[in-house]
Amino acid sequence: MNLQSYASGHWFTSTAKGNAIRDASSGENIAEVTSDGLDFKAMLAYGRDVGGPKLRAMTFHERAIMLKEVALKLGEFKDALYAASYQTGATKADTWIDVDGGIQTFFVYSSKGRKEMPNQPWYVDGDVEQLSRGGSFLGQHIMVPRQGVALHINAFNFPVWGMMEKLAPTLLAGMPAIIKPASATAHLTEMAVRYMTDSGILPEGTLQLICGRTGDLFDHLTCQDVVTFTGSANTARHLQAHPVFAEKSVPFLAECDSLNATILGEDAGPDTPEFDLFIREIVREMTSKAGQKCTAIRRIIVPAKSVGTVQEALKAKLENITVGDPRIKGVRMGPLASLAQRNEVIERVQELASCADISLDGTKPFEPMGANYGAGAFVKPTLLFCDAPLDNETIHSVEAFGPVVTIMPYDTVADAITLANMGEGSLVASLFSHDPDVVFEVAMGIGAYHGRLVVIDRSSAEESTGHGSPLPHMKHGGPGRAGGGEEQGGIRAVKHFMQRMAVQGSPDVLTNITRKWVSGAAEQTMDAHPFRKSFDEIKVGDTLITKSRTVSLEDIEHFANFTGDTFYAHMDEVAAAANPIFGGRVAHGYLLLSFAAGLFVDPAPGPVLANVGLNDLKFTKPVYPGDVIQVRLVCKQRTARMNEDFGEVRWDVTVTNQLGEECANYELLTHNERVQ
Amino acid sequence: MNLQSYASGHWFTSTAKGNAIRDASSGENIAEVTSDGLDFKAMLAYGRDVGGPKLRAMTFHERAIMLKEVALKLGEFKDALYAASYQTGATKADTWIDVDGGIQTFFVYSSKGRKEMPNQPWYVDGDVEQLSRGGSFLGQHIMVPRQGVALHINAFNFPVWGMMEKLAPTLLAGMPAIIKPASATAHLTEMAVRYMTDSGILPEGTLQLICGRTGDLFDHLTCQDVVTFTGSANTARHLQAHPVFAEKSVPFLAECDSLNATILGEDAGPDTPEFDLFIREIVREMTSKAGQKCTAIRRIIVPAKSVGTVQEALKAKLENITVGDPRIKGVRMGPLASLAQRNEVIERVQELASCADISLDGTKPFEPMGANYGAGAFVKPTLLFCDAPLDNETIHSVEAFGPVVTIMPYDTVADAITLANMGEGSLVASLFSHDPDVVFEVAMGIGAYHGRLVVIDRSSAEESTGHGSPLPHMKHGGPGRAGGGEEQGGIRAVKHFMQRMAVQGSPDVLTNITRKWVSGAAEQTMDAHPFRKSFDEIKVGDTLITKSRTVSLEDIEHFANFTGDTFYAHMDEVAAAANPIFGGRVAHGYLLLSFAAGLFVDPAPGPVLANVGLNDLKFTKPVYPGDVIQVRLVCKQRTARMNEDFGEVRWDVTVTNQLGEECANYELLTHNERVQ
Repeated sequence: MNLQSYASGHWFTSTAKGNAIRDASSGENIAEVTSDGLDFKAMLAYGRDVGGPKLRAMTFHERAIMLKEVALKLGEFKDALYAASYQTGATKADTWIDVDGGIQTFFVYSSKGRKEMPNQPWYVDGDVEQLSRGGSFLGQHIMVPRQGVALHINAFNFPVWGMMEKLAPTLLAGMPAIIKPASATAHLTEMAVRYMTDSGILPEGTLQLICGRTGDLFDHLTCQDVVTFTGSANTARHLQAHPVFAEKSVPFLAECDSLNATILGEDAGPDTPEFDLFIREIVREMTSKAGQKCTAIRRIIVPAKSVGTVQEALKAKLENITVGDPRIKGVRMGPLASLAQRNEVIERVQELASCADISLDGTKPFEPMGANYGAGAFVKPTLLFCDAPLDNETIHSVEAFGPVVTIMPYDTVADAITLANMGEGSLVASLFSHDPDVVFEVAMGIGAYHGRLVVIDRSSAEESTGHGSPLPHMKHGGPGRAGGGEEQGGIRAVKHFMQRMAVQGSPDVLTNITRKWVSGAAEQTMDAHPFRKSFDEIKVGDTLITKSRTVSLEDIEHFANFTGDTFYAHMDEVAAAANPIFGGRVAHGYLLLSFAAGLFVDPAPGPVLANVGLNDLKFTKPVYPGDVIQVRLVCKQRTARMNEDFGEVRWDVTVTNQLGEECANYELLTHNERVQ
Repeated sequence: MNLQSYASGHWFTSTAKGNAIRDASSGENIAEVTSDGLDFKAMLAYGRDVGGPKLRAMTFHERAIMLKEVALKLGEFKDALYAASYQTGATKADTWIDVDGGIQTFFVYSSKGRKEMPNQPWYVDGDVEQLSRGGSFLGQHIMVPRQGVALHINAFNFPVWGMMEKLAPTLLAGMPAIIKPASATAHLTEMAVRYMTDSGILPEGTLQLICGRTGDLFDHLTCQDVVTFTGSANTARHLQAHPVFAEKSVPFLAECDSLNATILGEDAGPDTPEFDLFIREIVREMTSKAGQKCTAIRRIIVPAKSVGTVQEALKAKLENITVGDPRIKGVRMGPLASLAQRNEVIERVQELASCADISLDGTKPFEPMGANYGAGAFVKPTLLFCDAPLDNETIHSVEAFGPVVTIMPYDTVADAITLANMGEGSLVASLFSHDPDVVFEVAMGIGAYHGRLVVIDRSSAEESTGHGSPLPHMKHGGPGRAGGGEEQGGIRAVKHFMQRMAVQGSPDVLTNITRKWVSGAAEQTMDAHPFRKSFDEIKVGDTLITKSRTVSLEDIEHFANFTGDTFYAHMDEVAAAANPIFGGRVAHGYLLLSFAAGLFVDPAPGPVLANVGLNDLKFTKPVYPGDVIQVRLVCKQRTARMNEDFGEVRWDVTVTNQLGEECANYELLTHNERVQ
């Protein structure tokens, strides 16, 4: 009956007596959990020696496609995952967030990995830095996968999503992972891990699982490993006290529960759409996952004049919430994850009640739908009110991890900001206002204390994902009480699992390491026109120097009349002479671009399909009538996307005048056919 | 005789008995140091309440100009700073690194602040994220200054640079700082702080100084503060053990000494330029600052065949190094910072000698130039050799913080990589090789263990800043033993002192918060043509819709013949029909750009001086003969640089066809005159 762990390539069953996992509604025993007997040191070594090298040999695009395939595979087992999820107390809506949300995170990282990262195993971070006058010594940051294992210690509330949102960036970075789910809901994580490993999509050694405690694992961490933690601040402190974190500088990324606030703008009176959205969102946040979300609203900051209205509106809705076994039709809110959690919530409400009035008390025994109050971990929504929140620290620091909120009044926007910040750091705050000045003041005022701000008003309400939904695109994590970590936020999260290295050397050295041509690096004169070369034949550094062409006054006037661009700097000698940049008539920038194309384009059909874009164009010196221009085209970067019959080539284009002075520089993008 | 601290707006002299600071060469007493009596809690409050708000009200450009002014002011006092530097044992060359290097760091951050950051108090980080199908709900990360104080605990070896390199990004971020120098050289830091505060350039409360210990300061840190530390790994561990770091998630950024390696490539035999560069660089690194640099070379990894040659070449040069009082002409290397440091170095050399041979022993008493061995902290360069470095952990973990290196042989590049990584994390490694394959293999192999890699070869030697010089542009910091922190690296360092917040809302909300127009946000039809408006009159969101224009086949042919761009997709119906992107003849992309300009340009002289550039051009849909195009120009962003009589306006330009489909989108940059 013990859940299995997946360690060093094998499913392992402990023979020790484990702790029971129980159905949150019925109290029925589901399984037991213990990791006694696991060889944690060997697991770390297995990840490092077997999984790491395999992942590091893959490109970001290959890893991204692996994520997509895993997500598709998991999607085939949704029914089984859903059933296990209901056992944790999750309703169908909660389960969608956990299971479908987890799978969706893999899809998003798969897409971002292919769009925003290169098709090679290492990442070029930021721009080239000019470190010398002559240009022979340059700098460039690159990022490579860390050569250790990422240990993810997860919370009980989202056994699938909580794993997937960390696993996606870890695997994309090229780092193997060990997952350690919270015991109370570990059976659901175990099931998802089993589907993933059984699929054979993930290289051996890249994913391991510890059901139970981590034993002596921390003692064997090295400077290449990473530990992430999601859960209570107390546990975070306890774990972080292990000396390995300071001794080996092992990164410890924490995301802890915090007292997230929502603010109702003064402009959002009872007749406004924002008021209704506010009430709806609070009810949704309180009841979703029975309030067991690290992002759930805990503090409701409302204009003093609106306190009564808000209280009544919330009470009316919350009293109608049906609580019970989530498998029963009509149940809106399920139980907490365990009886221990219920005891914890009841104690915290009592603590809060020492400095706030209870307007609605959901902590008393009641009859849950289709379940027994004694066996399941049921509570009902609970509403508190604190009338002097600026003088009270408890309501900003004590968190009941369930459907419990405290309403608090404010007089001025500055006071609302102070109240929001009294939480001493939180994951997310939301603001319901349609007044741009209020939005700006709140954003600037609370920015240093909150990881995320959601502004909800009539203009985005229909599509808004709301207060409590972390998205893979946006940072999830906050300062202070929220743990100080950052998760997700797109490619930012991938970087946590890579090491940044500054590389300094000559242009050739940088081009060699980054595979991106850098100004000053070797240029190979091409043996054929670049338009005659397929994607696979072109090499970084391949260079074409065109013939030259004189730009005459007639050309300029002809172009002006043809295009309609008769700007005075091109057409009026006297006015152009007064222009501080030009001091005389000049050629149109677009004339230069057009003539440049005329010089470097080879007309006959060939592997170059199209010029699809252009970047970072700078006109650096005016071209005057009579100037003679010439173009240099250097292959700067090649990007082949997987499963496409063309690749993208980026060219560095420089237009010079008869003195060799640079007049324009830009990056040109072409699509070139691959060799069939 | 006690050095003063600068606390809460006043210079403070402790009445307690302090520890002596002594001249490193003569042992003469310079001053005493103690912080007894300082009110540390009040200092933090003063920084937060007085300095923070003033800095946060300034834009990045204003803060950047402040840095430049401070640097210029400090430059006026170089002679006094130099004299105090010589007392620390620094030679003139060492002093240049410390004093001039520190000032230079302010100049670089001043320049980067103005070039790479906006002229507003908050930072827009990364791109807009599409969070909804309809586009009414978007995401954007912003960064705002942390609302606390940065405490910088610095090392004794670079009393000026060590302060300046952290202070520059801190102040640029908008955060006040408290500097705590190491006691042994605190008199030089005190002098520099005094010049800075006396200048009146820094707003009150933004810079404070603790000469002595930090007392109970850590007890009063909050989630908004930051602590940085430079020094030994042991001290870092001791400091980091304070519970406030886990309890309040106070960031602790450490940069510790590490066992930096240099590798000689197999290709770099005794007859190559790289071999000579290698020998020269090691001698320079060992003697510069008497080897008391956190980036100094400690481990020399050479092909087994070259060990003898390297040893002899180094010995020959090192034996000729003159050691003595740095104020004496002809002295190449000064003393260590203190007698305590010398004892420490001698002990570590003895420890290393347990597993390595001493080829050159500089730890014995000798006659330093112009000084007394008993009074000054003199040692001479010391060379060790370890013949089985793969089997030995001591030589990769014990650091003598002075002019001491260990030579170790390798057989294959893979072994050289293993040896470099056995340091378990270091700040920097260097490689002397002119072989691209070796360079690539080493870069990828050691990247996860090193913060920086300098490749030195004949192509960059003349301009290379070498192994041991951290530069403001490049990351300074490394994993594991090096502390895991990151300093400098351009704007990256500024971000350590800001808090990142994800903002989610409608396009209008994002535009309001970022001051950058986002697709979907309100567009105001302009009351005048945009070319008639000065920089100060234009508003973000101002929009011009042009007339439309038909693109005829004649236009295309005319343009092709005029420019010379006769690419088949424009000229050959049959061939163009076979192109998978076009399927028929299409207009040139540059023709579209040119016609677009013809549609939106207003010809008469006015505030628009020039179109200076173009970004992110994407051709999204081909334009066919007979299509009718139209242009929409929206003011996206305005950037006024200080002290310039024009501002930069970024326009979002969209070209659509007769069906309203987008054919091209790009960002156009113009320079617009300001109101006089």
